[in-house]
Amino acid sequence: MAQQPQGPVLKVALVGGGTVGSQVARLLRENADELAARSGARLELAGVAVRDAGKTRVGLPLDLLTTDAVALASSGADIVVELMGGVEVAHEVVVAALRTGSSVVTANKALIAQHGAELHALAREHGVDLYYEAAVAGAIPLLQPLTSSLAGDRITRVLGIVNGTTNYILTRMGEEGAAFDEVLADAQALGYAEADPTADVGGHDAAAKAAIVAGLAFHTAVTAADVHVEGITSISVDDVAAAGDMGFVVKLLAIAEEVPGGICVRVHPTMVPRTHPLASVREAFNAVFVTAEAAGEVMFYGRGAGGTPTASAVLGDVVTVARHRVSGVVGPTLSTHAERPVLPIGEAITAYYVNLHVDDRPGVLAMVASLFAEHSVSIAGVRQEGSGDEATLIVRTHRARDADLQATIADLRESPVVRAVAGLMRVEGAD
Amino acid sequence: MAQQPQGPVLKVALVGGGTVGSQVARLLRENADELAARSGARLELAGVAVRDAGKTRVGLPLDLLTTDAVALASSGADIVVELMGGVEVAHEVVVAALRTGSSVVTANKALIAQHGAELHALAREHGVDLYYEAAVAGAIPLLQPLTSSLAGDRITRVLGIVNGTTNYILTRMGEEGAAFDEVLADAQALGYAEADPTADVGGHDAAAKAAIVAGLAFHTAVTAADVHVEGITSISVDDVAAAGDMGFVVKLLAIAEEVPGGICVRVHPTMVPRTHPLASVREAFNAVFVTAEAAGEVMFYGRGAGGTPTASAVLGDVVTVARHRVSGVVGPTLSTHAERPVLPIGEAITAYYVNLHVDDRPGVLAMVASLFAEHSVSIAGVRQEGSGDEATLIVRTHRARDADLQATIADLRESPVVRAVAGLMRVEGAD
Repeated sequence: MAQQPQGPVLKVALVGGGTVGSQVARLLRENADELAARSGARLELAGVAVRDAGKTRVGLPLDLLTTDAVALASSGADIVVELMGGVEVAHEVVVAALRTGSSVVTANKALIAQHGAELHALAREHGVDLYYEAAVAGAIPLLQPLTSSLAGDRITRVLGIVNGTTNYILTRMGEEGAAFDEVLADAQALGYAEADPTADVGGHDAAAKAAIVAGLAFHTAVTAADVHVEGITSISVDDVAAAGDMGFVVKLLAIAEEVPGGICVRVHPTMVPRTHPLASVREAFNAVFVTAEAAGEVMFYGRGAGGTPTASAVLGDVVTVARHRVSGVVGPTLSTHAERPVLPIGEAITAYYVNLHVDDRPGVLAMVASLFAEHSVSIAGVRQEGSGDEATLIVRTHRARDADLQATIADLRESPVVRAVAGLMRVEGAD
Repeated sequence: MAQQPQGPVLKVALVGGGTVGSQVARLLRENADELAARSGARLELAGVAVRDAGKTRVGLPLDLLTTDAVALASSGADIVVELMGGVEVAHEVVVAALRTGSSVVTANKALIAQHGAELHALAREHGVDLYYEAAVAGAIPLLQPLTSSLAGDRITRVLGIVNGTTNYILTRMGEEGAAFDEVLADAQALGYAEADPTADVGGHDAAAKAAIVAGLAFHTAVTAADVHVEGITSISVDDVAAAGDMGFVVKLLAIAEEVPGGICVRVHPTMVPRTHPLASVREAFNAVFVTAEAAGEVMFYGRGAGGTPTASAVLGDVVTVARHRVSGVVGPTLSTHAERPVLPIGEAITAYYVNLHVDDRPGVLAMVASLFAEHSVSIAGVRQEGSGDEATLIVRTHRARDADLQATIADLRESPVVRAVAGLMRVEGAD
């Protein structure tokens, strides 16, 4: 440090003393001078709310500990950092902080996905900031770029790998041919997956993040309940291998996009061409691929989870919020001025890959093709494989309304020449 | 639009009516309501300075045209957007704007790399903003994430592909085995390279961008003159093919990093492992790979040039600056509080790949290895190829001080067993 920066002292209250909280406390202390130079204020840790004050926590000052989270959040700190997780108590904590006039930084995706609109309104009412960069894609700067750098542009589509657990599992299934259960067990042993992996593998974690990103990208209130969710539990090694044979990788994508009449937000396993930038995002990494009218395609890549990366995103928000308090302003926030209708999955525009077990006789391809045509679904390519009892048709469609694609599949299941719809997955990024 | 936003009117003066300027004017007009909702102000085009008012410009309102750039910049607009390029007149324009109390948005990398510190000081003095997201990596949000999202972290290293022309050339040399001159001619025909390609292929364009990024990442004044520059003109197809054989691609990297005692900023052709995220950045795309203490590795990817992508970045800045003017504040700016020494290339920590033509007799490897050891350079791997007159040693080193590596190479050139140093390139991202 060439000079010792002056400036006001801002009190920071930390609610949650777990992995991320400890890292935030450590970095606040170790980088105090540098943070002061960057924010224009000295950031002073005013208190840390923990679940059990008796548990030793390396690096957390004992005299600052309390178990009363709501009291700490109401104590008039300049910035309340909420890292406790969960929704109900966290909601109470954040509401208390905003009502007291504290700005809030949180990493809580479930809270924002469920109560974002209400909390933003409360922040506006009290003239304070509500920031949550760490809630989506961990350390990757994403929400600030969406709301600032791309603020002059019109975003049309966001495709995100926003769950590290499922990306780790799908990467290993694809590269090693390992089975889902086996890789999940490894992921749990390595700490990449929770003991109860439902929220990750079921797609719900990604759905909360998709709701947050969609809200910021399209200036519309979106909650997790608006998001169509399919997880990866039914993906087999064969599905992944079949995708690989066709030059695709399987990713769990969070997708928010403009569709005719509104926007559509969805999470599901997706085939992505191997040449697409998202295809090379491996293991527990996250990436978000944004298409905007003027900017074209931009992608943000990095670590989506972990104590230190998440702490980096939290501290970035703390510095931003501190700058605002020093200047006496608030930053741009979620604006829902566009009020675009959030439409169901049937209105999404996507492409399908379909693997059909069919009768091996003349005319079958014509009959199958006519079913697609009846629903205005255009076929991008067909491959016939095997013969006799193993006759297979692999069909890849062009982009079409998801409802039309689903109606086609329903008709295929009824068709006398189709013995089974053996594989079915949506395809993105191919055209 | 669900509601017609109100708010003050901010006057925007546009200096430069070329490709980017026309796009900015178009988007200001077409997205007026949306930009008003996002910025909190109606953005009104107050004038456009062009070189030749007689030339027809699609989309530029004729009554707003002027050829007097400095007069327009001094006319008291809220925001002056400088897109004329060049350094001298642009400098005069930006100084005039800042002195008049206008905030400035520019895409001019050469101007900022050369006069950034002075212009930032002037902006601070007059209490206005100076933003230039478009100056580095076009549409990719990079400078705002560096100064905001990563503001709570400590950046240790930035590796960037920031010149689309050279990346296009190197991609085609690598993938098609095409010669430099041939690909350059194609790039010129496609509009990816200028008629005079010196600034691009010589590395000077990348050096200006490296200086800007280094300044923001390390809170230190850095100019283009501080940057060590090597271009790609001496890279042969054989070099690229040899790199490919070893699992590497060749990229022109802009590198800014912490080194013992300061920072080092350099631009040179670099071998990058094929598994590194930068390796898959092809053709005219740009990407910037940032390592930060807490965040780990994050990467930003997108289009680095072109009228519309650049206009997107300019408008993002315009919206940010407009928000600040509505609130009566200025944003965070280049802070040079860290004042870190900018050290010469000799202090960089890097690795080398060296291709040596050697005598084919016992003891040669031992003699070559001892030369590396004398300079404390550790060898990562050695491969012997050919025999007799074609005996070759391919050596890859671990990371070491560049000066020590250069001294090793000088000794190798003098060594009686080394007939020629036939290939030599720095390696990054391999350990």
